[in-house]
Amino acid sequence: MKTVLCYGDSLTWGYNAETLDRHAFADRWPSVLAKALGPDVTVIAEGLNGRTTAYDDHLADCDRNGARILPTILHSHDPLDLVILFLGANDMKPAICGTAFGAVQGMERLVELTRHHAWSFGDRDGPEILIVSPPQLCETANTAFAAMFAGGVEQSAMLATLYADLADELGCGFFDAGSVAKTTPLDGVHLDAANTRAVGKGLEPVARMMLGL
Amino acid sequence: MKTVLCYGDSLTWGYNAETLDRHAFADRWPSVLAKALGPDVTVIAEGLNGRTTAYDDHLADCDRNGARILPTILHSHDPLDLVILFLGANDMKPAICGTAFGAVQGMERLVELTRHHAWSFGDRDGPEILIVSPPQLCETANTAFAAMFAGGVEQSAMLATLYADLADELGCGFFDAGSVAKTTPLDGVHLDAANTRAVGKGLEPVARMMLGL
Amino acid sequence: MKTVLCYGDSLTWGYNAETLDRHAFADRWPSVLAKALGPDVTVIAEGLNGRTTAYDDHLADCDRNGARILPTILHSHDPLDLVILFLGANDMKPAICGTAFGAVQGMERLVELTRHHAWSFGDRDGPEILIVSPPQLCETANTAFAAMFAGGVEQSAMLATLYADLADELGCGFFDAGSVAKTTPLDGVHLDAANTRAVGKGLEPVARMMLGL
Amino acid sequence: MKTVLCYGDSLTWGYNAETLDRHAFADRWPSVLAKALGPDVTVIAEGLNGRTTAYDDHLADCDRNGARILPTILHSHDPLDLVILFLGANDMKPAICGTAFGAVQGMERLVELTRHHAWSFGDRDGPEILIVSPPQLCETANTAFAAMFAGGVEQSAMLATLYADLADELGCGFFDAGSVAKTTPLDGVHLDAANTRAVGKGLEPVARMMLGL
Amino acid sequence: MKTVLCYGDSLTWGYNAETLDRHAFADRWPSVLAKALGPDVTVIAEGLNGRTTAYDDHLADCDRNGARILPTILHSHDPLDLVILFLGANDMKPAICGTAFGAVQGMERLVELTRHHAWSFGDRDGPEILIVSPPQLCETANTAFAAMFAGGVEQSAMLATLYADLADELGCGFFDAGSVAKTTPLDGVHLDAANTRAVGKGLEPVARMMLGL
Amino acid sequence: MKTVLCYGDSLTWGYNAETLDRHAFADRWPSVLAKALGPDVTVIAEGLNGRTTAYDDHLADCDRNGARILPTILHSHDPLDLVILFLGANDMKPAICGTAFGAVQGMERLVELTRHHAWSFGDRDGPEILIVSPPQLCETANTAFAAMFAGGVEQSAMLATLYADLADELGCGFFDAGSVAKTTPLDGVHLDAANTRAVGKGLEPVARMMLGL
Repeated sequence: MKTVLCYGDSLTWGYNAETLDRHAFADRWPSVLAKALGPDVTVIAEGLNGRTTAYDDHLADCDRNGARILPTILHSHDPLDLVILFLGANDMKPAICGTAFGAVQGMERLVELTRHHAWSFGDRDGPEILIVSPPQLCETANTAFAAMFAGGVEQSAMLATLYADLADELGCGFFDAGSVAKTTPLDGVHLDAANTRAVGKGLEPVARMMLGL
Repeated sequence: MKTVLCYGDSLTWGYNAETLDRHAFADRWPSVLAKALGPDVTVIAEGLNGRTTAYDDHLADCDRNGARILPTILHSHDPLDLVILFLGANDMKPAICGTAFGAVQGMERLVELTRHHAWSFGDRDGPEILIVSPPQLCETANTAFAAMFAGGVEQSAMLATLYADLADELGCGFFDAGSVAKTTPLDGVHLDAANTRAVGKGLEPVARMMLGL
Repeated sequence: MKTVLCYGDSLTWGYNAETLDRHAFADRWPSVLAKALGPDVTVIAEGLNGRTTAYDDHLADCDRNGARILPTILHSHDPLDLVILFLGANDMKPAICGTAFGAVQGMERLVELTRHHAWSFGDRDGPEILIVSPPQLCETANTAFAAMFAGGVEQSAMLATLYADLADELGCGFFDAGSVAKTTPLDGVHLDAANTRAVGKGLEPVARMMLGL
Repeated sequence: MKTVLCYGDSLTWGYNAETLDRHAFADRWPSVLAKALGPDVTVIAEGLNGRTTAYDDHLADCDRNGARILPTILHSHDPLDLVILFLGANDMKPAICGTAFGAVQGMERLVELTRHHAWSFGDRDGPEILIVSPPQLCETANTAFAAMFAGGVEQSAMLATLYADLADELGCGFFDAGSVAKTTPLDGVHLDAANTRAVGKGLEPVARMMLGL
Repeated sequence: MKTVLCYGDSLTWGYNAETLDRHAFADRWPSVLAKALGPDVTVIAEGLNGRTTAYDDHLADCDRNGARILPTILHSHDPLDLVILFLGANDMKPAICGTAFGAVQGMERLVELTRHHAWSFGDRDGPEILIVSPPQLCETANTAFAAMFAGGVEQSAMLATLYADLADELGCGFFDAGSVAKTTPLDGVHLDAANTRAVGKGLEPVARMMLGL
Repeated sequence: MKTVLCYGDSLTWGYNAETLDRHAFADRWPSVLAKALGPDVTVIAEGLNGRTTAYDDHLADCDRNGARILPTILHSHDPLDLVILFLGANDMKPAICGTAFGAVQGMERLVELTRHHAWSFGDRDGPEILIVSPPQLCETANTAFAAMFAGGVEQSAMLATLYADLADELGCGFFDAGSVAKTTPLDGVHLDAANTRAVGKGLEPVARMMLGL
């Protein structure tokens, strides 16, 4: 049995910009990936609305700083074979960070945390790490989201290249979700059901390869 | 699709006192429960070694205070139909709390947190809550565990009655894991594979009833 | 006996930009409101210099994040009939947040915290909530304040409309302090004694109505 | 105008062990003290159920550690002429601290925090400090409280002497609430209305003297 | 024996922008200062890469907020005769603070913390405080540093004047490291060995004077 | 140049139970060790009064939890060749932990933190680690210390054996300070000047060996 942790934000949780609710279980990308990888792989969906890479955000009834929660999640699902880090969209909010460069630094911290994690059973190798860049934000008529993500269309356009370089430098896998999915103009950030499923399908080959399947 | 969150400690994670590793996926009680409930119910396993109800423990590379992490986990898996709170064994450590009474107070706080949680989508009913008392600790020749849980055999013997009363008072479901499983004398706290499976089987009827299945 | 909590910042504390001290007790708006409402209403003044809605600020010997302290204050003064949330001016500092939109999000979190608060005595209704927008910042020759609140004149001009919409959406009361008071050009942010008193007088009718008096 | 801060726990909040609710406003000791001191003194009631001197307690929806919250409260009510520290009863819970000696250390920390506080307006003298020891706990048939405060009857008997010595050493005022009030056997910890009022009356002379009235 | 605490960031730690390693012990400015002051003065080097004055930065495996760590460091090295606060360069990062004005506020908080510190042995005078402004940032071809410190060349140019004013206002000593050292164009922020040594030499006279030597 | 970090508590700081002040610089064990190891070794003294291994203590104006501060200290003094962990005495306070077993668990966490630390320059080997057990506490007529360390004489007697086993298990060096020094009956915990110096001398051979000198 191999285990994959999908550590992400609302794109992983499955926020539906049309219904303001959650996509159906089968439409969320971790479910699609799980089905594609088959019964010998456990895929754990850990998506939190609003999660950042390593920045505080006290606007919700939970801890949205991805770096503060990751060690606990790593322990809960230990042993892990692959950790997929699909974060950065919320870093585009100017009130959080506002720059692609900042998201890259946060992503680097998450990789560092995973690599240096004090696993309960010390003699295992740590998991492989796959960095996923979110699809570029797009223009939206939703004024609340446009305000919340001011400047995000330009900044998020840089994420894929910067994340790819980081993955290269750190020896991680890389996948550009923007290569298979587009954000919805309904709010400029999220994915509709078809695009969510596309991410799961797109991730299958790289996940398979990194799991040695 | 119904969703069940299993929020627990090493008894939920599946710590194997014989191999000092994790029980096979199929032997862990959330897996057994998932199989029993069938494909229309998603069962989320959220067991962390050393997790307490509401007490700090800074001895590991993660946050073991169940009350500090629960809100984040509730958000990640929202919407939920049933939350199973299976905690209290680690509260038996004198360095953490050391009394059954303290575990009851911590469990009460977890119910309160769930009931007052600020769900993202406000107009849904919150989940049902099922309180599970861990099986009584037993004597062990493992001196490290005997020291770490000094007094735990006596204190844990009171948990089932106290948790049952609490569940009654708060309108929660209750299940005594000690009615179907026994702790192993290897360390006095954990469950072997057969006993872990027994918990999953034992929980099926009450989970089914609480889910309206 | 009815109880009103005035949860605010230096505008509630009574910072006097002329003397760099505190306004006389009788000039602070909570005192004026208390007098107006009469002896059957207890008015609690909880104004902290520098308090934000939900953002960290580590520049003082106290916790200025309004969202972190509010639950403790709610418990201390429980039972409450009306909570007046008069915050947002400090959110205008670019180092804190810098946008009216951010202040609105912070205010929304404070309402959420109040609505979901785990009151000690669970069967009471929670308090009514009145959102108060601070008067627009004005130009000042005070260079330290001008630097600290760069851009605040423009951003704060939007607060009243945005807060009114939020109050509407969340079923809260709303009062625009800018309708009765003006900030002093001495520092561009604070209120002189006459304007402070005006806020208390202005709040009387809406407080009375919300208290059912 | 002189200002007195009453920083305390449920004995200051006014917990009524008979009705499990709050004593009437007029029966709480800060109200009695306020009335006795007259209109030229503002008396601020800051009592939080469960507040400790300097120990964490994560069982409620607020921060019960008196040392973590005090600096914020000192700022909110600055300038202060007298701070009354009436804490220690909750330190008697074994899960919190459990010893009179520990309460004394916590009280010493609160005095230190007040003395070293970075007041907003630096050139004022800090407030006088009055340490108040809670009345001795008594035996109770309430099993929950008896368990929660196990050993408290003996330990709390030492508080008055130890607090008196501490006050002497630190140059603070001292008042033994046990000299005018007795805890109720209903739960062994709290004060009925008559005893609450007695504390307010008892405090008047020492408060008057310390305020130079 | 006199004791000097050097509380700083990578400029104090001795980051070498050429080798991406640490300058030799003898080249770091605290070592140079120690040698210059002679064997009767203990000089403690407390430089942390990335340390800010009073702002959070969760991108590293440590606490970079200078205000949160300073009290612990003050206790560890008590009694102190002189505290040198050489911080502000990391405040120039827009993701941290981004303005000279913000660095000044952070520096003011550090002075306040030192002045109000609750020393273990209360009857000593506190240490003298010397504020040191970092040399102005310069243009660099290093794109990562240029992005991380966007706007820093202009903002850091204001630091010396603003820190000098603050030192004057607070009764602290002041030294402009930019009067003896220049940042390297390799990354625009750090000092080469010669410039690091120059800071130590430049500080000798002012340290000597403040120590009464 | 080799670097040694001495991470400890009041025994490392040099608390003098006779004068209630700090031992002279030359009498503290890190100074003695530094002199013995010669000019090619930098010895960093990082002793904080009241520091625990991994337990919270909110009674002072600093963070006494050794596990929370260690990562910051490791970064400040990176690169390190040897880390000496000389803690555990304060864990003997019942209000902190109260058992030798708990101190061992805390010490294990400190070793884990050091081994898993995310050093700034990743390709170096981490430092060697030397665990030092404090000398056994002794009976004292000092009632405050006797109360604060109730049970400590018995518990601390077990520390040397338990720490030796831990060091063996984790591949660390071990030194029993009790083999060369005795605690003073003045308070039952601390070391007089002669005993402090003895610790430094006693540590020289093991430090030399671990440093490969």
